Amino acid sequence: MKLLEERILKDGQVVGDDILKVDSFLNHQIDAMLLEEIGKEFRRRFAEVKVTKILTIEASGIAIACMAAKHFGVPFVFAKKTASKNLVGDVYTSKVHSFTQNVDRTIMVSKKFFNSDDTVLVLDDFLAKGQAALGLCDIVAQAGAELAGVGIVIEKSFQEGRSILDARGIRVESLARIATINEGKIRFI
Amino acid sequence: MKLLEERILKDGQVVGDDILKVDSFLNHQIDAMLLEEIGKEFRRRFAEVKVTKILTIEASGIAIACMAAKHFGVPFVFAKKTASKNLVGDVYTSKVHSFTQNVDRTIMVSKKFFNSDDTVLVLDDFLAKGQAALGLCDIVAQAGAELAGVGIVIEKSFQEGRSILDARGIRVESLARIATINEGKIRFI
Repeated sequence: MKLLEERILKDGQVVGDDILKVDSFLNHQIDAMLLEEIGKEFRRRFAEVKVTKILTIEASGIAIACMAAKHFGVPFVFAKKTASKNLVGDVYTSKVHSFTQNVDRTIMVSKKFFNSDDTVLVLDDFLAKGQAALGLCDIVAQAGAELAGVGIVIEKSFQEGRSILDARGIRVESLARIATINEGKIRFI
Repeated sequence: MKLLEERILKDGQVVGDDILKVDSFLNHQIDAMLLEEIGKEFRRRFAEVKVTKILTIEASGIAIACMAAKHFGVPFVFAKKTASKNLVGDVYTSKVHSFTQNVDRTIMVSKKFFNSDDTVLVLDDFLAKGQAALGLCDIVAQAGAELAGVGIVIEKSFQEGRSILDARGIRVESLARIATINEGKIRFI
C-alpha cells in the first residue's frame, strides 16, 4: 500500500537494525484519515470473503479494527491483555509470549461474541514474531469459527512471524512488508 | 442522542443499581457503525470550535476517538496506563484513581504530540466519578494547550463526575445521560 509505505518512510523512526517506531501516526498518536484508507484496503483485499466479525488485540489494534469493521459492515472484538470487570463469564483464553517484555500473557475474549457460524478476520498493527496473531487465530479455532485470514498493517518480513503463519496455511495480507532495516534505511518487499 | 439511548435500552445490561454493561457494542465487542454516528455527533456538538487534536485513554476510548478524529479531520492520541516501549522520552503524566479497582494509576502521554497552539477535545466512553476525564484535562493543561471540552458517550449523571467537571468550568457534552438505574430500569435525563 503505497500511501502507507510513503508515510513509514516520512514519519517512521528507525532504531538500530530491527526497530521501527511509528508512534506519530499508528501507535500512540494516530492518523484516523490514514486508518480510513487502511480499513478500505483490508476490505478490498478480503472482498470475496464473507467476513462476519473482526478480532484484534488491545491497544494499538483497536483503531485499525474499528475503521476496517466500518468498511466490512461488521462488529469487531478486541482481546484483552488483563482481566477486567467488563469481562465476566465464560472466556476463550490463549497464551501469548511477548519477546519485547519477555513475559507470557494470557489474552482473553468473551465466548458470547463468537460461534461456529462466524468467519473471522484477525487484524493487528505489526507482525514480527507472530505470537499475537497466533494467539488470536487460536481463539478463532477454539470458537469453532472459520478464519478468513490475518491482516497486518506493517510486517517485519525479516522476522519469523510471516513464515510461521504461512506454514500453518493461514492467509496473511500485510499492507507494508519490510524486507530489511539497514543503517537507518527501510527497504520494502 | 436517540440512536445511542435506544441501543443502551436494547443491549445494555444493568447490574444492581449503578452498573451498566455495554460490552456487546461499546466496551469489548464494538459496533463501528454506531461509533461512526457517535463521531459525527461529537463533531456536530463542537462544530464551532477549532479542535486541533483529540485526547483519550486506552482501551475503550480508542475506537471512539478514532471515529471522532476522522470527522474532525485531526489526529488523536491515547494516554497509556502502563509504561511501554513505544513511549520513550519526555512524557506528561497524571495520577488517576480507579474506584472500581481501588488503585492509583499514572497515565502517560508523550510530550511531543501537544503544544500551546493546540485546542484539545477530550473524549471517553463513560463519565462516572470523573477521575479519568480530570487526568486527561490535567495533561492538556500541562501542555499549555486550550481545552475545547470533554465529550462523553455515556454519563452516569447520578455519580459526581459531571458536577466536578461543571464546577471547574469545563464544557461537557454527553451523548446519553443516565439519571437513574432503578430495579433494572434505566431513566435518561
